[in-house]
Amino acid sequence: MRIDVLSLFPNMFAPMRESIIGKAIERQLVDFNVVDFRNFTENKHHNVDDVIYGGGQGMLLTPQPIYSAMDYVEQTAGNRGRVILLDPAGRTFDQKMAEELAQEEHLTFIAGHYEGYDERIRDLVTDEISLGDFVLTGGELGSMVIIDATVRLLDEALGDDMSAVDDSFSTGLLEYPQYTRPADFKGKKVPDVLMSGHHAKIAEWRKKEALRRTYLRRPDLLASYELDVDEKKLLTEVKREEN
Amino acid sequence: MRIDVLSLFPNMFAPMRESIIGKAIERQLVDFNVVDFRNFTENKHHNVDDVIYGGGQGMLLTPQPIYSAMDYVEQTAGNRGRVILLDPAGRTFDQKMAEELAQEEHLTFIAGHYEGYDERIRDLVTDEISLGDFVLTGGELGSMVIIDATVRLLDEALGDDMSAVDDSFSTGLLEYPQYTRPADFKGKKVPDVLMSGHHAKIAEWRKKEALRRTYLRRPDLLASYELDVDEKKLLTEVKREEN
Repeated sequence: MRIDVLSLFPNMFAPMRESIIGKAIERQLVDFNVVDFRNFTENKHHNVDDVIYGGGQGMLLTPQPIYSAMDYVEQTAGNRGRVILLDPAGRTFDQKMAEELAQEEHLTFIAGHYEGYDERIRDLVTDEISLGDFVLTGGELGSMVIIDATVRLLDEALGDDMSAVDDSFSTGLLEYPQYTRPADFKGKKVPDVLMSGHHAKIAEWRKKEALRRTYLRRPDLLASYELDVDEKKLLTEVKREEN
Repeated sequence: MRIDVLSLFPNMFAPMRESIIGKAIERQLVDFNVVDFRNFTENKHHNVDDVIYGGGQGMLLTPQPIYSAMDYVEQTAGNRGRVILLDPAGRTFDQKMAEELAQEEHLTFIAGHYEGYDERIRDLVTDEISLGDFVLTGGELGSMVIIDATVRLLDEALGDDMSAVDDSFSTGLLEYPQYTRPADFKGKKVPDVLMSGHHAKIAEWRKKEALRRTYLRRPDLLASYELDVDEKKLLTEVKREEN
């Protein structure tokens, strides 16, 4: 997969050199490039923004540098790929969208900063995506979040010890509580069942606690989850215990 | 405001040295610290994780290093502040939560990586927050997103030219389309009204286009927005034009 990000703050992408994403880039699973679109300005002061037509506080990103940077991406990659604009008005990002993006061969992100975009920049874009109902100082962190959620789904990106199969959301339920050593930490003990070695009981406890957590915190997820016979029984118990 | 982040990947926090957040730290509006909890392990191999009781792929973060790092934060800051765990099972982050966190004097984030947390780590936590329904390789990017959204709301964090008042979500509608120079870019023209100098017409056009964008993309926001008489009329026009 090739990923290009158009940004004025190339140094903000340091997290992409670390951990799983860094390894995916090192192992050439991902060809990751940050394109500083200030380098593509055609005015002598290298301005990337200008005042707003019709009045208003602040400045807007002007189309020319971003259009030219996009031409550069197209020339070097052979195509623009999916072009993603981080914007509060976009579709809300979720795991399904990450799975969809993980199928692509080329993603190009446009990350603005502080300011709005000239509307004509949206003509370059195939997907406007929002992380959620909150406002950030720029599109850099949002781009990295989407890249992280997407790249970790690529085959071989997660090592042998790890797996995306058991992720929250991929089962449709929140994760059950988990414990590691020590068995007693400052008087806080691991539930006996988990140390019993009784696999069927452990599996049942985990299913029940996943149902409990989802019921208490995210009942909306339960609404679209198909319960089997055993799960129905466990959820009935949970409801009785919690009410 | 003081912010501590417990993380195994201190280098991932480079974005916090850039732009608005970097300036807020430089100007001592924010005292930002990353605490590498691997430094607080009490085992000779500096392991921070261990196998899962009851079986399961992968490893879990063990409580001791995180408890000890939290004691260190408490000793140096005098308190732990709001302790935030990034977790898919948490409350979904939004602008209202950012506004609430911006009122605090001290925020401490626990950013895990790859793996789950031993359940007893949650006993340290005042707020479990999720960015959205997707899975990341770690809590670092999520912590930075929350910090960015929060710090930009602090008085003086945004410069004079900028303001959080006009943000998307703070008005309750999505933003109207905006344009800057040139008036004609590759044949794509700025709407005439915005260059007319007629303030009342510009204001009406903007209101109508904000309503249009919200109606088309986020009708859920309109449901909780109180329309005044003029807005009702404009929305009726929008609906007629779009249907």
